[in-house]
Amino acid sequence: MTDAPKTFRRAERTGRWAEVDVLAYKAEGAAPFKDITRQVLFGDPNLACELRYFEIAPGGHSTLERHEHLHAVMIFRGRGQCMVGDRVMDVGPHDLISIPSLTWHQFRASTEEPLGFLCMVNRERDRPQLPNDAELGELRANVAIAAFLDSA
Amino acid sequence: MTDAPKTFRRAERTGRWAEVDVLAYKAEGAAPFKDITRQVLFGDPNLACELRYFEIAPGGHSTLERHEHLHAVMIFRGRGQCMVGDRVMDVGPHDLISIPSLTWHQFRASTEEPLGFLCMVNRERDRPQLPNDAELGELRANVAIAAFLDSA
Repeated sequence: MTDAPKTFRRAERTGRWAEVDVLAYKAEGAAPFKDITRQVLFGDPNLACELRYFEIAPGGHSTLERHEHLHAVMIFRGRGQCMVGDRVMDVGPHDLISIPSLTWHQFRASTEEPLGFLCMVNRERDRPQLPNDAELGELRANVAIAAFLDSA
Repeated sequence: MTDAPKTFRRAERTGRWAEVDVLAYKAEGAAPFKDITRQVLFGDPNLACELRYFEIAPGGHSTLERHEHLHAVMIFRGRGQCMVGDRVMDVGPHDLISIPSLTWHQFRASTEEPLGFLCMVNRERDRPQLPNDAELGELRANVAIAAFLDSA
């Protein structure tokens, strides 16, 4: 049971917790992203899901990707935009976002504030897919998505 | 796919979301509890866990219970106390609480503020057990727990 977290772990300040490491979002160069960190809040192997906290610095973004597994997201702090499929929405604290299977998605922080969000995900899950040039061209044919992808 | 939630569901005010019903915590009379509501934020059958939001009114409490499945809790709003095993802790916003298997636990809101918390739990899980008189007597032998259980 060395994996078991302590029963109580304190919030130290917004987006930081005692005994929760701030990790790289992904391996550098594995996929495009900018200014984002990852923390695993709950990852006990006896839980069928993990609860992670991601924080994107102002002007940063997550990877544009899709996968079979679902993402269940709650915005935790800050403001930004979220693309899911063919929709781009402004998002703010406590908004809920359900990312369906095999649906392109990306999170972008505003230029003024970080964007922090909780993401629940199945422990057993497939690897994300990146868009190829044809898929990216298709996405960019939507002017709202093109503007989103090109935003600072 | 009639079960699939909308992609975006807005936070309407603290602890309330568009298209998320505020439910009874448990069936009335099923177990002791006081002034607590339940909302299922994410319950898609393709997610191996559910993310629920519970809110306890000032002076209220959840059921004192235990079960094999784990609870992964983040305090969302307000203040209160949480008993896990033989420990009673003051808790506040964003504190993380890991409730181990078969460990007695209860949440109590302060008398001044509601206590709202997120709870991630396996979709497939066992039913909670309530303490019998002997078990309750054993818990009450700990003066800190007795004071907690008797707090308003």
